[in-house]
Amino acid sequence: MSRFRSEVEKASRERCSRIVLALDILEPSKDRLYEKALWVMREASENVCCFKIGIPTVLKLGLSDVSRLVEEAHDMGLPVIMDCKLGDVGHVNRMMAILYFEAGFDALTVNTLVGFEGGLDSVIEESKKRDRGILPLVYMSHKGAEETFGQTVLSKDGTARKMYEVLAERVKLWDIDGIVVGATRPEVIRQVRDIVEPDTPIYSPGVIFQGGSLRDALEAGSTYLIVGRAIYLSENPRGESARLKKILST
Amino acid sequence: MSRFRSEVEKASRERCSRIVLALDILEPSKDRLYEKALWVMREASENVCCFKIGIPTVLKLGLSDVSRLVEEAHDMGLPVIMDCKLGDVGHVNRMMAILYFEAGFDALTVNTLVGFEGGLDSVIEESKKRDRGILPLVYMSHKGAEETFGQTVLSKDGTARKMYEVLAERVKLWDIDGIVVGATRPEVIRQVRDIVEPDTPIYSPGVIFQGGSLRDALEAGSTYLIVGRAIYLSENPRGESARLKKILST
Repeated sequence: MSRFRSEVEKASRERCSRIVLALDILEPSKDRLYEKALWVMREASENVCCFKIGIPTVLKLGLSDVSRLVEEAHDMGLPVIMDCKLGDVGHVNRMMAILYFEAGFDALTVNTLVGFEGGLDSVIEESKKRDRGILPLVYMSHKGAEETFGQTVLSKDGTARKMYEVLAERVKLWDIDGIVVGATRPEVIRQVRDIVEPDTPIYSPGVIFQGGSLRDALEAGSTYLIVGRAIYLSENPRGESARLKKILST
Repeated sequence: MSRFRSEVEKASRERCSRIVLALDILEPSKDRLYEKALWVMREASENVCCFKIGIPTVLKLGLSDVSRLVEEAHDMGLPVIMDCKLGDVGHVNRMMAILYFEAGFDALTVNTLVGFEGGLDSVIEESKKRDRGILPLVYMSHKGAEETFGQTVLSKDGTARKMYEVLAERVKLWDIDGIVVGATRPEVIRQVRDIVEPDTPIYSPGVIFQGGSLRDALEAGSTYLIVGRAIYLSENPRGESARLKKILST
C-alpha cells in the first residue's frame, strides 16, 4: 500500500469522512484564488479526508504557489491529489509526473484510455520510486463518457464486453491505489466493485452539481466521494462539508 | 475555415515546410528553459509552419511566460498549438480552454476519447467564439495506443469497427481544423485519410525519435509532421529543421 493510500485512510478514519474536496475554484485574480482556496481548505479541513486540485488552478496560480497550498494541506494532515488525468505519450507523461511530484502532490489521476506501453508505464514507474499514488479513470462522470468508457468492445477471442470492464481488469495489473468511477452511474460502480480487489478504493466524482447522489454511490460501492462546487461555492464550506459528511456516515 | 487553419497553411506555403516544431524542452531552470525555447524557435522559424507547446513547458514556465513565447511566435508569423490533450469534464475543460486562449494560443489538442456531451462540447464552443482551432486525437503515436484507439468496437447495429475509425467519423461532425494521427502507423493514416474530408489537415507526431518516418507518413496522407527532439536536441536546430523540411519537399 502506498503512503498516499494509507494517509487517506487515516484522515478518513480520524475525521469520519469519505469526502474528497475538489478545489476547481474560479476567481478573477491570482491572489484572490489563492486566498479563497486556502480559506475553503481550512474551513472544510475537519470534514474531508483529502483535497483534489485540477489543472485550471495550476494554470492560474502557477506550480510554485500550488505547491504552497499542498504544503498547507499537509500541515492540516491531509494528502492532495493532482487531478491531471495524464494522457500523453510516455516521455511527456514522465516530465509532468515528476513536476507534480516535486510540487508535493501525493497522487495523480491518469487517463487509462491512453494505454500502458509508452503511455502510462513511465508514470507508474515514477510514482513507485517515490511511494506516491496513481488513480486511473475507469468511467468518467459526464454523459459523453458513454461514447468510449461505455462502448462495447470485442476482445481477440470474440467476447463482447464494455470498455470500462476491460479497463477495470487492466488496472489490476498496475498496482494502483484506487480507481475513479463517476457517481452518476451507480450500476457501473457496482459492476466495477466486483472486478477490482475488494479493498481497492473507488473515488467517485460527479455528485450533487453533476447529478450523482452521495448515498447511491456509497451503497453501490464507492469508497470516497469527490465534492467540489457544492462545498466551495457554498457561503459556509464548513457547515456544508459537515452536512455532506454526515449524509455519508449515517 | 478557422483563422488558425489558414495561418498554418499560409506559413507552410511561404516557408515550403510541413513541419510543426514541438517544444517539449527540458532545462533545469525556468530562465534557461525560456531562453533555450526562444533560441530554438528563432533558429527554426524559417523552416517550420507552426509551433507546439506541451503542458510540461507550461508547468515549468507558468502561463504568463508561455504567453510571451506565443507572442514571440506570432511576431515570427507563426501560430502556436497548445498540446493540452484536453480530457476532463465540460466545466473544467472550459476553464482550461479559456485560460489557454487568453494566453494567446491559436489551437488546442483535445482527447477525442473523452466524448462530446458534457466533455468536449464546451471546448468547441469556446474555440468557435474566438475563431481558434481544435485538433482532436484520432490515434496516438505510442505502442499502448493500440489498447483503445486500435480496439475493435461493436456499434449498436452489431457492426465491428476499429475505435479510430469511429473517432474519425465522429469528429467530422465537430467542424474541426485538423486531426492528430501518429506517424508511427502509416496504414492508419491511409484509412483515416479516406474517412475525413479530403482537405482536413492531418497532424502526425511520432517521427524520428519515436520511430515514425517523415516520408512514409507524408505518402500515407499526413499534411503536417510534428517534430520535437530531433530538432530541439540538435546542436544546430536551424540546419536540422532545414534538412527535415527538404526531405518532405522533394
